[in-house]
Amino acid sequence: MPEESSEDVFKIIVATDIHLGYGEKDVIRGNDSLVTFEEILENAKKHEADFILLGGDLFHENKPPRRIMHGCISLLRKFCFGDKPILFEYLSDQSADFKHCQFPTLNYEDTNLNVSIPVFSIHGNHDDPSGQGNLCSLDLLHSAGLMNYFGKTTSLEKIEMSPLLMQKGSTKLALYGLGSVRDERLHRLFVHKNVTMLRPKENQEDWFNVFVIHQNRAKHSTTSYIPEQFLDDFLDLVIWGHEHECRLEPEWNSSQNFFVSQPGSSVATSLSEGETVKKHIGLLQIKGKNFKITKIPLTTVRQFYMENVVLSETELDPNDLDIGKKVEAYCSEKVEAILQKAGR
Amino acid sequence: MPEESSEDVFKIIVATDIHLGYGEKDVIRGNDSLVTFEEILENAKKHEADFILLGGDLFHENKPPRRIMHGCISLLRKFCFGDKPILFEYLSDQSADFKHCQFPTLNYEDTNLNVSIPVFSIHGNHDDPSGQGNLCSLDLLHSAGLMNYFGKTTSLEKIEMSPLLMQKGSTKLALYGLGSVRDERLHRLFVHKNVTMLRPKENQEDWFNVFVIHQNRAKHSTTSYIPEQFLDDFLDLVIWGHEHECRLEPEWNSSQNFFVSQPGSSVATSLSEGETVKKHIGLLQIKGKNFKITKIPLTTVRQFYMENVVLSETELDPNDLDIGKKVEAYCSEKVEAILQKAGR
Ligand SMILES: [Mn+2]
Ligand SMILES: [Mn+2]
Ligand SMILES: [Mn+2]
Ligand SMILES: [Mn+2]
Repeated sequence: MPEESSEDVFKIIVATDIHLGYGEKDVIRGNDSLVTFEEILENAKKHEADFILLGGDLFHENKPPRRIMHGCISLLRKFCFGDKPILFEYLSDQSADFKHCQFPTLNYEDTNLNVSIPVFSIHGNHDDPSGQGNLCSLDLLHSAGLMNYFGKTTSLEKIEMSPLLMQKGSTKLALYGLGSVRDERLHRLFVHKNVTMLRPKENQEDWFNVFVIHQNRAKHSTTSYIPEQFLDDFLDLVIWGHEHECRLEPEWNSSQNFFVSQPGSSVATSLSEGETVKKHIGLLQIKGKNFKITKIPLTTVRQFYMENVVLSETELDPNDLDIGKKVEAYCSEKVEAILQKAGR
Repeated sequence: MPEESSEDVFKIIVATDIHLGYGEKDVIRGNDSLVTFEEILENAKKHEADFILLGGDLFHENKPPRRIMHGCISLLRKFCFGDKPILFEYLSDQSADFKHCQFPTLNYEDTNLNVSIPVFSIHGNHDDPSGQGNLCSLDLLHSAGLMNYFGKTTSLEKIEMSPLLMQKGSTKLALYGLGSVRDERLHRLFVHKNVTMLRPKENQEDWFNVFVIHQNRAKHSTTSYIPEQFLDDFLDLVIWGHEHECRLEPEWNSSQNFFVSQPGSSVATSLSEGETVKKHIGLLQIKGKNFKITKIPLTTVRQFYMENVVLSETELDPNDLDIGKKVEAYCSEKVEAILQKAGR
């Protein structure tokens, strides 16, 4: 598959877990999440993406501080509006696909808005709908015409997903999305066969089927994750949000016959090993039934390092009378060395 | 001055103190403020207003609940976007007039947005800038392209107001605005001659000068209000926000040679006499140096009644052994009668 733009190739910037507002009160890191979001949007512009696909947790907090919401609005308006034409067609019924929204329309099909790069997003567990009206931050952005919020489920007993159907040249894309649901509940719904993915009636084999999901992928307990084998095997590619480790390289699931790509977060939000992995977003290119994902390294992310210190493996003597001070000195040296590495 | 539309007549819908979200948790009245805001926007559409001018306190709370912000966004998008052409010109420098905003532009001059009815607003004391970044809810709406937020002051020592200059046919409008400032501080700034209103250099006499302000108009204490005589006498019309009693009918200030019009709130937010006055918004028409304000009654407002009960003026006998019960019965009858009146 060629790298260059082609009239049959969907070019999609894929990112998840941007966590806008993470550490926003921190004097030094307070703007990190917004800075990296800007980098992501710049990449979408630079690569002339057809659209941006976000996999949930765009916001770190359910009720983001005003400064963060304002920053997000400003960046979306700055990068996603303009004269670049939309080069793909929308084939499904937008009023059905966005029926959960006050404005059941695609922002770029509203003749009052001149959108250059549509953003499609599901919600994560950090920015899920709640409170009066069951709204989330993405509803605000959707109603303001700044993004297209899909995959919002309302029923607690039955989930039926219709794909957003898009076509670019000869390539047909069926995009499924499911905003974050409590793992145990979704697990149960799957077990009881209450999760259905609807498919286009005609020429089913022509469609490239992508599913974006925001759940635990790693097994935490028996029911608090979604095993890959629960997912329909007609899928071609699953974009897995919520897990923060960058594992963009598509992983083949041979029992399900689909690939899974896990973009990971664009900011480290916990002191865990997974967050030390270099952060990337993906440029997903789809042509017919083929695809490839190019890893785009994020250059604005503050690199997070982690090291284990096993004192018994050092030359420190536990019987030394000054052992307290010496351990302290040893650790402090380690930390300094890591800080130096980070400063590079 | 003729009522009908004319190419020289500015038609402006004027409203203040809409207090979106007032009583939003109330099961019965929870949507009142949004319903009336919709009525105001419908009126602007019906009367083909050139723009809407809001005098502060659009929101009741500094951090409005998500449902309220969502309702506001949805209504602005529904009513203020569309193909109706903008029939007036903007003559001053928008990048200077809106320099306090992330997007120092008028929403209707952004070629990516198709705005039919621009909204101009100052902030009130209920929705004033605060917190990190000194932002308010109107900043979110402005940056989303849904309104034009002006009159934001940043200096604590000196206020210098430049007018927004607009022209429709031969009518020239200089619009001054000052978002709410603590009364005592603004009073002191005026006393020390630290409030300046700049004027267009040429043909000063041709401009119709409107000033929209959101302060105490009634004397509360010596310094906690702004006396009308503090305001420049070149002004033609002052739109006074913050005071909730509807006194739209322009009142002539003969020492200052200007009119003052006080639209009042569109929802009653306190148990005071002023709030019982029938609620209206204004249709302000300006042609050359002449203007008139037509009162438009708001039909969706829940009428608020108030009555004084003076027991000594009734036939109730304070020495009656059952006086407690009788007073209770008397009051309850009064309330029932008012409720009946309200139900009409
Ligand atoms: Mn996350
Ligand atoms: Mn998550
Ligand atoms: Mn008010
Ligand atoms: Mn006020």
